[in-house]
Amino acid sequence: MDLPRFVIPAQEAESMARGSKLTVLQLLPSLVNSAKGLARPPISHYHVGAVGLGSSGRIFLGVNLEFPTLPLHHSVHAEQFLLTNLSLNAEPHLRYLAVSSAPCGHCRQFLQEIRDAQDINLLITSEPDSNQFQPLSNFLSHPFGPHDLLPKHVPLLLEPHDNRLSFLSETHLPSCNGFSDGHGELRYAALEAANKSHAPYSECPSGVALMDGEGKVYKGSYTESAAYNPSLGPVQAALVAYVAGGDGGGYERIVAAVLVEKDGAVVKQEDTARLLLQAISPKCELTVFHCG
Amino acid sequence: MDLPRFVIPAQEAESMARGSKLTVLQLLPSLVNSAKGLARPPISHYHVGAVGLGSSGRIFLGVNLEFPTLPLHHSVHAEQFLLTNLSLNAEPHLRYLAVSSAPCGHCRQFLQEIRDAQDINLLITSEPDSNQFQPLSNFLSHPFGPHDLLPKHVPLLLEPHDNRLSFLSETHLPSCNGFSDGHGELRYAALEAANKSHAPYSECPSGVALMDGEGKVYKGSYTESAAYNPSLGPVQAALVAYVAGGDGGGYERIVAAVLVEKDGAVVKQEDTARLLLQAISPKCELTVFHCG
Ligand SMILES: [Zn+2]
Ligand SMILES: [Zn+2]
Repeated sequence: MDLPRFVIPAQEAESMARGSKLTVLQLLPSLVNSAKGLARPPISHYHVGAVGLGSSGRIFLGVNLEFPTLPLHHSVHAEQFLLTNLSLNAEPHLRYLAVSSAPCGHCRQFLQEIRDAQDINLLITSEPDSNQFQPLSNFLSHPFGPHDLLPKHVPLLLEPHDNRLSFLSETHLPSCNGFSDGHGELRYAALEAANKSHAPYSECPSGVALMDGEGKVYKGSYTESAAYNPSLGPVQAALVAYVAGGDGGGYERIVAAVLVEKDGAVVKQEDTARLLLQAISPKCELTVFHCG
Repeated sequence: MDLPRFVIPAQEAESMARGSKLTVLQLLPSLVNSAKGLARPPISHYHVGAVGLGSSGRIFLGVNLEFPTLPLHHSVHAEQFLLTNLSLNAEPHLRYLAVSSAPCGHCRQFLQEIRDAQDINLLITSEPDSNQFQPLSNFLSHPFGPHDLLPKHVPLLLEPHDNRLSFLSETHLPSCNGFSDGHGELRYAALEAANKSHAPYSECPSGVALMDGEGKVYKGSYTESAAYNPSLGPVQAALVAYVAGGDGGGYERIVAAVLVEKDGAVVKQEDTARLLLQAISPKCELTVFHCG
């Protein structure tokens, strides 16, 4: 059987719904179980699946990721995976979200980074009485969020970002594990990810690009939360791209990584990015470039 | 003016309330502003104060801590500080909690580690209509928590823990920065903290003991969340003890640190603990002991 994909085009979503005699909204919870099967939680063995409907009509999947030998804050929750998946695919808004377990507070907070987050409609498939979607405001009343800290014009998550970073010096990317990156592809992919990073609180955007053994590149943008701790690191974001866009292989297939961040950043990702990459793909070397 | 203290004995709380013609419950929000003054948020400059009433009648303060040059997940929120403060002082239950800003979802989740968390009464001083306490269940409905993962008999946060760890070998603590720890005080303090650690999900308890220049010891127990990411690291917990119990000095006054954790732990604190200590007190060396 084919594994489900992490992005389902709008037309295909509609035809899947018709084929199952469901509405597209009813289709979302029906996909949660197959999403769970894609989770990678080797610590808890607790699989979480999230299925979201964007304003474009596309359906997005999210799953949880855990990384043994590291502290638990490295984990990626299914809802964070899902939002990162929307962001990677330039989806402007999340309208409906079906999840296999009650979203934790950390995720309810992370969701606040979307404009009008309180209107996102949520359904928990494991709750017997939950056969209908309810607004996120029912799950996190009196929210703390971007509105407490930012002027209204500052772009939020899923809105276009351009952090206008550029390299401080035009050094060439050194060859990494034999993968010489002649065109600086990985370096510019990481810069592009850093320029899309949502980091309005610390103003320390960053981005990561990973390359697998076949030369395929996966980009991830650091995503900050108004509440700080639920922020998603740039390696985690790139691993979402790897899991969502790769062929289902293990992290050891990642052979090269580039991190781009600000010189002298007050929120600095380098050491922690290196810890995570060493734990999941010991042969991958991380190269760091600083931006101004 | 004297700085407010982080623990106020029951009798003193009652006499403070009488002196201000308030009830003890009314005293809590009135102390939030002076608690804010004790916060250490050098990244956001956003001070948060939390004031809690325990079942013993004692009042506890909590503030937020942030650590420049590191990712934001290292931050300690005021509510996490407060719970750690209760735990350090063997307070069996938190009844009432007044905070200066709406608690973020991450903290609402962390609070779930207390038995009957949904009955904790919460008041947000910055909300104009919030002149009365409301149960936490109003702020995090449909919670995910310990009840989703643990049998009922497993001790929760603030309940007595004994993880029955002991050292694998009777090695002596090496002298650290000239502070020879002849009696193994620091090592046994870290072991005691590890034995009190709340880590029922990963079963990887850990503890840290810090020593300042005057030889005073500060213990911290790793505290896990059912939702993983809101877990509080053992260095963070020991820094809560340092801020709450020290003389208000900077972290550079910490000269020695011991971490005790399980050999071959699937959730391993060592590298991350070292990163944090290097960032805040470069001269402090971390010694790690493994337990069985
Ligand atoms: Zn979550
Ligand atoms: Zn918080």
